[in-house]
Amino acid sequence: MPDEFALACPLPIANRKTIVLGHGSGGRLTAQLLHDLFLPAFDNQFLRKLDDQAVLSVGGARIAFTTDSFVVTPLFFPGGDIGKLAIHGTVNDLAMSGARPLYLSAAFIMEEGLPLDELSRIAASMSEAAKAAGVAVVTGDTKVVNKGSADKLFITTTGIGLVPDGVEISASYAKAGDRVILSGTIGDHGMAVFSRRENLEFEAAIESDTAPLHRLVETILAAGEIHALRDPTRGGLATTLCEIAGSARVGVQVRADRIPVRAEVKAACEILGMDPLFVANEGKLVAFVAPASADAILAAMRRMPEGRDAVIIGEAVEAHPGVVLLKTEIGGSRVLDLPFSEQLPRIC
Amino acid sequence: MPDEFALACPLPIANRKTIVLGHGSGGRLTAQLLHDLFLPAFDNQFLRKLDDQAVLSVGGARIAFTTDSFVVTPLFFPGGDIGKLAIHGTVNDLAMSGARPLYLSAAFIMEEGLPLDELSRIAASMSEAAKAAGVAVVTGDTKVVNKGSADKLFITTTGIGLVPDGVEISASYAKAGDRVILSGTIGDHGMAVFSRRENLEFEAAIESDTAPLHRLVETILAAGEIHALRDPTRGGLATTLCEIAGSARVGVQVRADRIPVRAEVKAACEILGMDPLFVANEGKLVAFVAPASADAILAAMRRMPEGRDAVIIGEAVEAHPGVVLLKTEIGGSRVLDLPFSEQLPRIC
Repeated sequence: MPDEFALACPLPIANRKTIVLGHGSGGRLTAQLLHDLFLPAFDNQFLRKLDDQAVLSVGGARIAFTTDSFVVTPLFFPGGDIGKLAIHGTVNDLAMSGARPLYLSAAFIMEEGLPLDELSRIAASMSEAAKAAGVAVVTGDTKVVNKGSADKLFITTTGIGLVPDGVEISASYAKAGDRVILSGTIGDHGMAVFSRRENLEFEAAIESDTAPLHRLVETILAAGEIHALRDPTRGGLATTLCEIAGSARVGVQVRADRIPVRAEVKAACEILGMDPLFVANEGKLVAFVAPASADAILAAMRRMPEGRDAVIIGEAVEAHPGVVLLKTEIGGSRVLDLPFSEQLPRIC
Repeated sequence: MPDEFALACPLPIANRKTIVLGHGSGGRLTAQLLHDLFLPAFDNQFLRKLDDQAVLSVGGARIAFTTDSFVVTPLFFPGGDIGKLAIHGTVNDLAMSGARPLYLSAAFIMEEGLPLDELSRIAASMSEAAKAAGVAVVTGDTKVVNKGSADKLFITTTGIGLVPDGVEISASYAKAGDRVILSGTIGDHGMAVFSRRENLEFEAAIESDTAPLHRLVETILAAGEIHALRDPTRGGLATTLCEIAGSARVGVQVRADRIPVRAEVKAACEILGMDPLFVANEGKLVAFVAPASADAILAAMRRMPEGRDAVIIGEAVEAHPGVVLLKTEIGGSRVLDLPFSEQLPRIC
């Protein structure tokens, strides 16, 4: 069989010789790249936790530290833009450790030919988002590459936050018995970006849910015992549940009928053959909380606009460690597995 | 006159409507972008200092915080690669505030098709550079964009360091009377990258000077009174001197015959019509120090391999604030001004 036909079959990952889009999906290929290449190179106790941020001790202070590059296309989409997304993404990654976000850096890689008025609008949007979240962009960098060497604009934001004494949150701290709380509807961000990118028009406009979540986190930290927190961005809710199950070595069981999806997002996903469980969110969180705290935390969440649609969607169990089971609406069970690659590239 | 001819004349910057390569030069266009667009958007006391890092108070600790995107092409060049450069660049930006570099984040934007073995070599090189500098890469991110939407690989590194009590260093603290010390030869990095990119072969190979400078800084901090420190990267020595002169509102006078340039770099610059004063370095620093400390600091520098070619190249003066004068070898004086755009794009 000639080589070009052999390549049409799914290749074992170990045989891949180049980066493919799926390596940026947040799914199985991303995880393999991390485990096979980056973790062995940079191995240390902080990276090994595989949280979205490191919690460090610096000069006696407990500091959360996180970075993300944003490569979303298009730059502007219903409900937001790359700049707002970059601020919220970093604020949220800090918040998911229980930290109070304080300072951000922003590095811009610009393609020659980027209209200055677009850059201006994005900087203004970042500034507004930073002010609203109570953080300051205190240092930055600008680089320009030749036309054709980048796609308009990439932004990398990095954040520093202060973790209050006594707060210990990590995906690896989820425990069997924990209740799983989701703060609201899923799939809004991914479908908003995708519909703008593909110029799809649905009857009802879908808007990104991009929003800062640190105030919601501060509120629920005061309401009860939280073990794990994560914002289900790239790869969606399913990927986040798989990551937590894998990191904490617990099983997770969630009920499909409990997971809120807007009617328009559901309809768009059905038309396009996508699964909202795997579509990115930018203003939602998943909390694994001690069972005795679940009702108090849920009530506290619902009192805030960012959490008004919060629901308990399931629980962590001792059975099937590392595996996430979805109880479907018709009573069956489905294993939610890390996607191999992605449904929607470049949504953040 | 038809419009397309009018556009052939140099345009006033205010009329530019799009990003051009010069906006990434570190020169006048970069400064204008900063002053006209980013500073008004994000205005705060830290950014206003225009140092390459912010010094923050977090939970009682004095923390230096800095970010840089690396877009150098080619990815591998004599004496280094993009990964080594990213680690050294961030370590050095921390060190220039007098901080002890501690933790780094690394965000990778990869183009579909990037060979995994190149990525592997770069990660290994970063790891080695981080270990040698005594810092840990504790958090990161990976994104992939479609073929043609980036140029192989961009890396954004962000660093956290601890500033010792009593250390107060900023470009704005340079004073008239300060001696200006340069830690070694100039132009090596830019010419090494450029010659590899253009496949130029000179009789003697030119190697990048990329190196971490924090140990040199620690040593000279103990040797005397230092006001300003900066590593003359993008835009070269001339740009750095202009920045310090502008930031501190002092005049600067330097002597051309004191500034060390390797014979092969000088020859390559002459052939290509470039000025080594404006060519990037990645393992050199400029220090503005109290006159009484100058000899002690120079001696301390020369005892270390990173500073063995250190020289006093001039001084800060009260006359002509903001202006840098170069006394040429034939006895004349030349104003060193921020370059409008760049000689060598994408060298870091």
